[in-house]
Amino acid sequence: MVSVMNKVADPDGAADLYPSRNAGKPSVIGRADPAVYTDPEDASPGPLTRRQLLDYENQGFLVLDAFFGPDDVRALQEELNRLWAGAADSGEETVIREPDSEVVRSIFAVHEGNAMFRQLARDRRLIALAEQLLGSRVYIHQSRVNYKSGFAGKEFYWHSDFETWHVEDGMPRMRAVSFSIALSQNTPANGPLMLIPGSHKHYVACPGETPEDHHKMSLRRQEYGVPDRASLAWLAEQGGGISVSTGAPGTLTLFECNTMHGSNSNISPNPRSNVFLVYNSVENALTAPFGGMKPRPGYIASRDFTALSPLNGP
Amino acid sequence: MVSVMNKVADPDGAADLYPSRNAGKPSVIGRADPAVYTDPEDASPGPLTRRQLLDYENQGFLVLDAFFGPDDVRALQEELNRLWAGAADSGEETVIREPDSEVVRSIFAVHEGNAMFRQLARDRRLIALAEQLLGSRVYIHQSRVNYKSGFAGKEFYWHSDFETWHVEDGMPRMRAVSFSIALSQNTPANGPLMLIPGSHKHYVACPGETPEDHHKMSLRRQEYGVPDRASLAWLAEQGGGISVSTGAPGTLTLFECNTMHGSNSNISPNPRSNVFLVYNSVENALTAPFGGMKPRPGYIASRDFTALSPLNGP
Repeated sequence: MVSVMNKVADPDGAADLYPSRNAGKPSVIGRADPAVYTDPEDASPGPLTRRQLLDYENQGFLVLDAFFGPDDVRALQEELNRLWAGAADSGEETVIREPDSEVVRSIFAVHEGNAMFRQLARDRRLIALAEQLLGSRVYIHQSRVNYKSGFAGKEFYWHSDFETWHVEDGMPRMRAVSFSIALSQNTPANGPLMLIPGSHKHYVACPGETPEDHHKMSLRRQEYGVPDRASLAWLAEQGGGISVSTGAPGTLTLFECNTMHGSNSNISPNPRSNVFLVYNSVENALTAPFGGMKPRPGYIASRDFTALSPLNGP
Repeated sequence: MVSVMNKVADPDGAADLYPSRNAGKPSVIGRADPAVYTDPEDASPGPLTRRQLLDYENQGFLVLDAFFGPDDVRALQEELNRLWAGAADSGEETVIREPDSEVVRSIFAVHEGNAMFRQLARDRRLIALAEQLLGSRVYIHQSRVNYKSGFAGKEFYWHSDFETWHVEDGMPRMRAVSFSIALSQNTPANGPLMLIPGSHKHYVACPGETPEDHHKMSLRRQEYGVPDRASLAWLAEQGGGISVSTGAPGTLTLFECNTMHGSNSNISPNPRSNVFLVYNSVENALTAPFGGMKPRPGYIASRDFTALSPLNGP
């Protein structure tokens, strides 16, 4: 049985709306925030249609096929491959490896350290999407490139990004959106992104507490902020199943910061790679972490809240 | 680069047609045996059509949707659940657990120890399929029920069953077929069976040797008889990709004993269960293991080569 608590009243902003990792038992809390911060009926211009906004509000994600064309995809792939080759022997803390090997799995803060990804993060098409969903100007909370190797890529267990960003980074409200740009073919065989439809409407407070410097291990394999099985099964039942994001390179998947997601392992010969950009509203700037720990480093959770100005690109 | 060797001549049966785990380097050997042992143009009765026989010969597998109806599926599911509940605390060697936990993953020799699965193995529809493919009377080489738990089911890495059956059990030729009967919904999310089309036409000789009593560990996690990555990538390229077996409970998948197959992990809440029956030709009875070790126990590789007589069922 899953106990669903009502929204916590928050008249003066004093209470933590989304407590987690501080109680013995897991619980599911109703979401206190909208997913779409503009009125879908508003006729003011934005790239997403009323139908798409309603889908995002209901499902917690939106898949835009062929958002990037073949030339853009090729340029981004080549840049990712260059970054990858350079990261193999890197001692940079932005380079994260597989839990069981030294194979590189993610490179963080690419929107700062790399000219092409810096431009991509400021692409006017992406910023327009983020601003329409979040109803304000936006900045990059986190960026990375992910590379799930063929044969050996391990699973990412279910999680809500917001749970971590709230507890460990001090993100106050659910007003951020993740953009995943596929740079490889995503098939049922190579461990594609899986999303639980509608899961963003519920906040799963996770059991346990958070050890010091948790991020040094959690980026390789998460052991805290892990939702319990009963809540996950309940979410999947509510959502009518699990959505598997398969599609061609160039597909753009937008998912709400609290949407429960994960992926299985990849024993196929084909790697799975993508660019991941998180836009947060400038009205939702980070505070002190709600879990009481010291903030994570800037390459994981940026504290430069300056609104991005769009460029052409990539 | 993958080196493909020609078939080894075998005029007097003295040479090992399918050597493996005895050389330093992996290699790919051409298949010396047919996949279908009856003439597809033969008008004599059999359940499979000419088209289906040709597909099996070319692809190495065949998927028969809704082969078992809802009543049969329910009865088999209930029996599997009963077996499962009984196995949790069992010390029987036929009960195999997950590599990282005590969760039961497979129960072997169910066609001997359980009345319903004993009857299923003798189902006249199944025997007719096996006899048509193998061109002779048949017996059960191995049977088991598999249960990939939700949330925690781990991957099965790529393997050819025949490679193990040849090296560790002494199966002389490729003249066996595996029947997998789905007892749960198989979706892209719950780690479904993946097959490499056409891979049965090539024998991947694996590197390494085989330790004593290898099966005690290999049924949980295989570390020997593991194909090399270059050969797997080459097979997938030859086959035009990877086929993912999704389908409803009651789906019957027939796959040739040398078809390369595996599955990813399962973090979804939904378990994946099936019954697995291997029919071997009575003209292909086991000899001494080609790897030189002592034979594995009868519950893994039966040495009762008596032809099965069909019953009605299940």
